Amino acid sequence: MRHGELIDVVGFDADDTLWRSQESFDAAEAMFFELVGPYTPEGVDLADSLRAIELDRVPLSGYGVKAFGLSMVEAAVTATSGRVPSSVLGAIVDHVHDMLRQPVELLPGVPEALAAVSATHRIVLITKGDLVHQTRKVRTSGLEHLFERVGVVLEKDVSTYGRLLDEWSIDPSRFAMVGNSVRSDVLPLIELGGWGVHVPYHSTWEHELVADPEHHFDTLDSIADVAAWLAAEHRH
Amino acid sequence: MRHGELIDVVGFDADDTLWRSQESFDAAEAMFFELVGPYTPEGVDLADSLRAIELDRVPLSGYGVKAFGLSMVEAAVTATSGRVPSSVLGAIVDHVHDMLRQPVELLPGVPEALAAVSATHRIVLITKGDLVHQTRKVRTSGLEHLFERVGVVLEKDVSTYGRLLDEWSIDPSRFAMVGNSVRSDVLPLIELGGWGVHVPYHSTWEHELVADPEHHFDTLDSIADVAAWLAAEHRH
Repeated sequence: MRHGELIDVVGFDADDTLWRSQESFDAAEAMFFELVGPYTPEGVDLADSLRAIELDRVPLSGYGVKAFGLSMVEAAVTATSGRVPSSVLGAIVDHVHDMLRQPVELLPGVPEALAAVSATHRIVLITKGDLVHQTRKVRTSGLEHLFERVGVVLEKDVSTYGRLLDEWSIDPSRFAMVGNSVRSDVLPLIELGGWGVHVPYHSTWEHELVADPEHHFDTLDSIADVAAWLAAEHRH
Repeated sequence: MRHGELIDVVGFDADDTLWRSQESFDAAEAMFFELVGPYTPEGVDLADSLRAIELDRVPLSGYGVKAFGLSMVEAAVTATSGRVPSSVLGAIVDHVHDMLRQPVELLPGVPEALAAVSATHRIVLITKGDLVHQTRKVRTSGLEHLFERVGVVLEKDVSTYGRLLDEWSIDPSRFAMVGNSVRSDVLPLIELGGWGVHVPYHSTWEHELVADPEHHFDTLDSIADVAAWLAAEHRH
């Protein structure tokens, strides 16, 4: 049997699967180090401070640009013992608002890949992060009309996927999730009896770490290959 | 016919319907004025500046505590022309994290009222704001188990309610929404052919402004009266 006959609905992750995201955080961090570095005393590791504050805040403020902005302000004040000028903190907050406003940059081949899959299957989008920002990206991407459902969630774990698929009346065993993260986009679905299709953003190879006796997990080179994967015979 | 026979599912708003919320924002604003006021030049209206920045940012950053925190930092730097010390901005961000961590304070009679309604009807929660913060409040409230569904949305408008009720397979004409805002909790439901139950947080009287020929809109003194409303005869 072909994968496509075993699957009714295909879910897509968004950040770094449909459009670029990580680069924008990396650029903001670079700006942060450039602006705040000059006020940081010798011996203080600014990157460590930011990382620790971010990790500490995630359970309270979540992932996403606004939480990252608040963490940058806090890290700047903490790591410089208040020596950083407030104008620098204003510039950091400005940059965060710029990030929220940045146009979406689709990854190569995405519109064609989604069009091909949506010609044979119902498709949905499931993304983690800031509700306003993710909603804005979906709306401005020009792709929203293709998705039957859009879910913005706090964590991409088994219970969240389970709840969402239940709300959407989708049978997990007939659902495949496509995304760049094995941990967030593949493993929870395998656990739910569904399917995971890993499309790495950078060349990574994480497949070998996952127990997958049913062969419900595949890694593809590009999102453009999803339609071909659906048309391919299941190896089991 | 009784309201309860015409209605299958009752939705509840959360902030200032189930638990206190506005006071926490008011207190944060008072702290902001106290901390930033001394650095604000004469002739500059700090409250105006904060309000204008908040309004300007809502489409990008949404409602909720994190967006409010970023707006406070930006307003402090702008209104003082950068004279505010960065330690004050650090204190503002700290306060925002405290707000995210604050225990939920239920309004009087809420657990009993929800238990009474959930004994006869399916209930759901629909709230606007920050995804992490709202989810945390629902989870820590001890009330989550009563709700069949929990939706955190960007805007409480006709299209959002329509989409959510569709996702949850709820017929709008058999759905009543209970909340403290006529604009957010009543009007969109009336427009969808559903029901609106207004439980004002402060004594307000907005009912007279709303066209409601079908008598699908009532105002109650307290959330404790919702069960009695369901048991009452429909006037139409």
